[in-house]
Amino acid sequence: MTTSNKIVYTLTDEAPALATFSLLPVVSSFAKVAGIDVETSDISLAGRVLSAFPERLKDDQRIPDGLAELGELTKKPEANIIKLPNISASIPQLRACIKELQEQGYDVPDYPYEPANDEEKDIQARYAKILGSAVNPVLRQGNSDRRAPPAVKAFARKYPHSMGKWSKASRSHADWMRDGDFFSSEQSVTIAEAGDVRIEFVDKNGKVDVKKTLPMEEGEVLDSMFMSAKALDEFFLRTIEECKEDGVMWSLHVKATMMKVSHPIVFGHAVRAFYKEVFDQYGDLFKDLGANPNNGMASVLESIKTLPHSKQDEIEEAIHSCYEHRPEMAMVDSVKGITNLHVPSDVIVDASMPSMIRNSGQMWGRDGKQKDVKAVMPESTYARIYQEMINFCKTHGAFDPTTCGSVPNVGLMAMKAEEYGSHDKTYELAEDGVMRVVKADGTVLMQHEVEKGDIWRACQTKDAAIKDWVKLAVNRARQSGTTTIFWLDNERAHDRELRKKVEKYLKDHDTSGLDIRTMGYVRAIRTSMERMVRGKDTISVTGNVLRDYLTDLFPIMELGTSAKMLSIVPMLAGGGMYETGAGGSAPKHVQQVLQENHLRWDSLGEFLALAVSLEELGQKNSNKRAEVLGQALDKATGRLLEENKSPSRKVGELDNRGSHFYLSKFWAEELAKQTEDKELAEKMGPVSKQMNEQEEQILKEMSEVQGKPADLGGYYHLDKAKADQVMRPSATFNKILDSLK
Amino acid sequence: MTTSNKIVYTLTDEAPALATFSLLPVVSSFAKVAGIDVETSDISLAGRVLSAFPERLKDDQRIPDGLAELGELTKKPEANIIKLPNISASIPQLRACIKELQEQGYDVPDYPYEPANDEEKDIQARYAKILGSAVNPVLRQGNSDRRAPPAVKAFARKYPHSMGKWSKASRSHADWMRDGDFFSSEQSVTIAEAGDVRIEFVDKNGKVDVKKTLPMEEGEVLDSMFMSAKALDEFFLRTIEECKEDGVMWSLHVKATMMKVSHPIVFGHAVRAFYKEVFDQYGDLFKDLGANPNNGMASVLESIKTLPHSKQDEIEEAIHSCYEHRPEMAMVDSVKGITNLHVPSDVIVDASMPSMIRNSGQMWGRDGKQKDVKAVMPESTYARIYQEMINFCKTHGAFDPTTCGSVPNVGLMAMKAEEYGSHDKTYELAEDGVMRVVKADGTVLMQHEVEKGDIWRACQTKDAAIKDWVKLAVNRARQSGTTTIFWLDNERAHDRELRKKVEKYLKDHDTSGLDIRTMGYVRAIRTSMERMVRGKDTISVTGNVLRDYLTDLFPIMELGTSAKMLSIVPMLAGGGMYETGAGGSAPKHVQQVLQENHLRWDSLGEFLALAVSLEELGQKNSNKRAEVLGQALDKATGRLLEENKSPSRKVGELDNRGSHFYLSKFWAEELAKQTEDKELAEKMGPVSKQMNEQEEQILKEMSEVQGKPADLGGYYHLDKAKADQVMRPSATFNKILDSLK
Repeated sequence: MTTSNKIVYTLTDEAPALATFSLLPVVSSFAKVAGIDVETSDISLAGRVLSAFPERLKDDQRIPDGLAELGELTKKPEANIIKLPNISASIPQLRACIKELQEQGYDVPDYPYEPANDEEKDIQARYAKILGSAVNPVLRQGNSDRRAPPAVKAFARKYPHSMGKWSKASRSHADWMRDGDFFSSEQSVTIAEAGDVRIEFVDKNGKVDVKKTLPMEEGEVLDSMFMSAKALDEFFLRTIEECKEDGVMWSLHVKATMMKVSHPIVFGHAVRAFYKEVFDQYGDLFKDLGANPNNGMASVLESIKTLPHSKQDEIEEAIHSCYEHRPEMAMVDSVKGITNLHVPSDVIVDASMPSMIRNSGQMWGRDGKQKDVKAVMPESTYARIYQEMINFCKTHGAFDPTTCGSVPNVGLMAMKAEEYGSHDKTYELAEDGVMRVVKADGTVLMQHEVEKGDIWRACQTKDAAIKDWVKLAVNRARQSGTTTIFWLDNERAHDRELRKKVEKYLKDHDTSGLDIRTMGYVRAIRTSMERMVRGKDTISVTGNVLRDYLTDLFPIMELGTSAKMLSIVPMLAGGGMYETGAGGSAPKHVQQVLQENHLRWDSLGEFLALAVSLEELGQKNSNKRAEVLGQALDKATGRLLEENKSPSRKVGELDNRGSHFYLSKFWAEELAKQTEDKELAEKMGPVSKQMNEQEEQILKEMSEVQGKPADLGGYYHLDKAKADQVMRPSATFNKILDSLK
Repeated sequence: MTTSNKIVYTLTDEAPALATFSLLPVVSSFAKVAGIDVETSDISLAGRVLSAFPERLKDDQRIPDGLAELGELTKKPEANIIKLPNISASIPQLRACIKELQEQGYDVPDYPYEPANDEEKDIQARYAKILGSAVNPVLRQGNSDRRAPPAVKAFARKYPHSMGKWSKASRSHADWMRDGDFFSSEQSVTIAEAGDVRIEFVDKNGKVDVKKTLPMEEGEVLDSMFMSAKALDEFFLRTIEECKEDGVMWSLHVKATMMKVSHPIVFGHAVRAFYKEVFDQYGDLFKDLGANPNNGMASVLESIKTLPHSKQDEIEEAIHSCYEHRPEMAMVDSVKGITNLHVPSDVIVDASMPSMIRNSGQMWGRDGKQKDVKAVMPESTYARIYQEMINFCKTHGAFDPTTCGSVPNVGLMAMKAEEYGSHDKTYELAEDGVMRVVKADGTVLMQHEVEKGDIWRACQTKDAAIKDWVKLAVNRARQSGTTTIFWLDNERAHDRELRKKVEKYLKDHDTSGLDIRTMGYVRAIRTSMERMVRGKDTISVTGNVLRDYLTDLFPIMELGTSAKMLSIVPMLAGGGMYETGAGGSAPKHVQQVLQENHLRWDSLGEFLALAVSLEELGQKNSNKRAEVLGQALDKATGRLLEENKSPSRKVGELDNRGSHFYLSKFWAEELAKQTEDKELAEKMGPVSKQMNEQEEQILKEMSEVQGKPADLGGYYHLDKAKADQVMRPSATFNKILDSLK
């Protein structure tokens, strides 16, 4: 194995970038004692803009393309990357950034909305690579390993978040399609030899329309499935009827963001079902106005604003009268009257269901009161796990964060595995016929009879990704000594194919002494919950969608949030990427710094990621000291939480910088205390002593600066010297850190 | 193995005894063709009275002691007993029987209520052996094998019983103690060597009171456990409070009949909790009046009748005001105002819970309407399985009898195994102290700190019974090729001991190719239900209490009743007893015969038992023809059900006798049709032909007699000739049967 004692720390945007000016010196200084270099890589929005136009910049203005370099690094076994949150830039954000850079004297071009010539087309193409979620696809070159760090878990046990009490008589439940959904129609094949396959539609007259040709690798798993539009409509009408009868609220839970082709269509069906009479009467008018129910009732309400007032009133009246004979609908915002069907991105199943379960199984009604609810999730594949958890809470009460165990996840994600890769292979059918997947030689691999309006999709999973996923699961089982469950449902075609591979690849590993099981989803979640309430941990090894769902569901029960989870991408090539928390790059935090020089950003995610990064680097390079450093950092983070030295939101109180000081103090203390590396302990003893003795002085220097505006020399592209000045206000603390180098 | 071609058919009481006059000639005639003798054994109430006083009877009046003979037979491997329902005689029934016998000229003595001398004491002692449930303990010398016969299952699939629809939003649930119950305190030991153990109470001053000395066998499992009175009271008050909050009815489900020492005490606690204010105020008065809440509110209401009217009114007022701030209580009889707490024998968990689950999870309210309910079952050991089924029904809807599989049971029952044997080792504690189980040498095997009012009990299970139970389970798994689950809960001390034995004894058998699993109760019932809804059968191998509960729970879902189950006791000595249905001996049926010569008794249970009896006799004695006979009988029974030739309740329509004719006709037809035994087919061909040809004549002869009073020459002790005359009215049919001999 190539060895390396290098950690790459990403420079990103806004609050996390600002915090880095304070934290990185700490990290570099401590890493140095284990012989580790901490390098930086600029993947900020400004950085990516600058690196896209080297030919327009002066020599001293040019910077390397950090993302491209990192992309290369992910293919090397020595990769060890700390990835902080960055901006997924919208066009307005990109334009603001360009403007700032131009003002700073960088000759970057304006963003051309409508390119007039080849040059502008080239400019637009370069900017296109910078827009949106451009970073994750480049860096996530592996499967996913998410878990609650011990320090975070210990904190949740000691200071539990609130959990809504469950009534044993709760009426809340999940409901799903019993037939006609993706689950019931799923077919799956493992490709025996590499080659192209075609996705084809055959109409009633036998005319073949090739929708797409896909190059397949040997051993790749290819699925196809469809959702019947008729069955979907019947399902929605049945659930609406049942809610009315039972007196519970109706609430739709889909994932129109991730399942970005299929689920908006499903959402549109729900809108048309709930407001059936309105669409029966005005559907054609809405179509003429360009309103799309797939975008929610907001789209309809927006579109009718162009109509005469009397017509608007008439339609609003019709909408209102729907409510009168419909069950109550769960509200996203009862004050503003925003329902569950307003826009498809408001209620996202992986967030909304844990929130409902944490909240006594209830959601908010029109009157602003919490009520029992039917959680409508058409696709039965995943909905059943939520019902199992609901039944579990009805039986055993809410989970108790002070005693419950943890359910970390190993998720199949590499090489665009599974459902994430399905968007470009999803079709809403325009007419009745047959959808099929055909080999180059004409062999039909899979086919479905479909009707107009049905949603058909295919989905690929690469063999190498599966193989790596199995390896990661075994590694995690071995490292943690935790019972490990592969969530594979024998009633699902795709999972039956995966199960064969899992059984095969497990033989490549030494699994002696490990408790590795395979179960269907419902049994798996039940077993995990039963262990959880007895304080036991259980690793869930799942596909990509369940990865997404479970890494919210369990953390929200255990920790009250999924933002405190460790998120590691052990890369296919052998390296590791350590992601620091969810929750974006917090523009509001920067505003507060500019106004009153107080940074409320909590670097907890960075502390946690760094600890794992150090430990894994140590293990891979036989750098015992790095491991000791990582373990001590974990303990320091635990103490930081325990002793409540996280940043406050209020000016004048401890902020991000003060929190970094305490982390340093605890880290040094833990290193001085540990006995595994005596030399290190001796070296850190005096450092720890200094920090303790000068604690008051350091805090004074740090708090003195607060309350006044701060000058960072930029927003997207900070002035390094100014930012350094602002973020390292304590000369005393800086001096101690420098002494470590 | 000793071989025998003999079946013993029991002569019992009332309707089944009367039906036997018609059915036995059929059975004997058909059995004869396989060389099988059908002998009778008189275990009727009258028979047992007569055999108890041989010295007072004339020579021709004396009869042998059938029960004693059968008791001896159960110890022999050749035992093959068809056991029909008999009277568990109360004293009034016994006296009526004595009177009838005396009038018939039998010099049996009167029953002495208060024996005045030794002779009368002797008489009372002899009668004591006849009273109550005297037959089952003598005959049930083995474990239990209960299953739905294929013909019955097929009938239920074709003509399903009604099942109440489940709402997914149902509020109904089961609730149990989370701590302080028998489950949480259970301890269990396996006795290493035979010897006495003592059950002792040690008071606060160290004074030891030996409650009982028990001789223990080697390998016997001995449990001890207690229920905390305080925890029980808190539990009841909590559940009452929750029902009030949640707006569901409160309903107590215990088994005060079977758990006849512990559960009446539990019942009493419930009464005192629900009517807390009444007992706070009048408890002492009730005690003075001799009212015992363990016997229900009926006892209280009865006792206060001796008080002045004004006082009665006051107490009734107090009771009434309880209802006002209590939740609604489930009613046994809403018309008569009989609540769940009226008498402890009204709501018996093994019957009441399946009935509730079959009934949409609802029970009856005071207003005669069905409502959701909290089913309160203090002991968590078994309550959890009901909640699992309730959650299952909420999720998947009611079971569908037309498609669902079956859950037969193999129950540990032999040698008074387990909980049935606990009554003489159950104590309600009079003061605080320690209950312990001590070996002869003083070693303390188990002990519990107990408080005044706690209920402590011990429970024995013999090693030989367990060994036989495992064998029976393997045999049933092998014979049926069905997945088999041992219900043993690792969280229960008793089950952990049993599990060791099961694992050991399973090795004594060839289990290759069998699917035998072991699971905790909740997992076991869930797995069984998941298989059930997919049409798959699963044998439940359980302890004695679960045997009792499950052989009602599943049959009521599958068949609508548990009365149609086959109930076999494969005896430890190798023989078999085949019990024919539950449901008593139906005195009302006899009244109808006396008045209008129509017997509505359905001999289905006898048909089913006889078929198995024949098959097992055939297998044991390599009497292939007996097996063919049994299989044909099963098919005939199936046709009887399918073609609706069961007895009608109305005079003039087909009754018990006509139903026996059809059974014979179908049986003969099936025998003539089968190809396994050609000689037999040839023999039965003409018989079948005759029955077909003379069907009209036979039915005519059978219906002609109906509508007039019938003379049976007695009620408890029939005149054989007269009964024969009444029950075999068709000379044509009799002649055909005679031709078989």
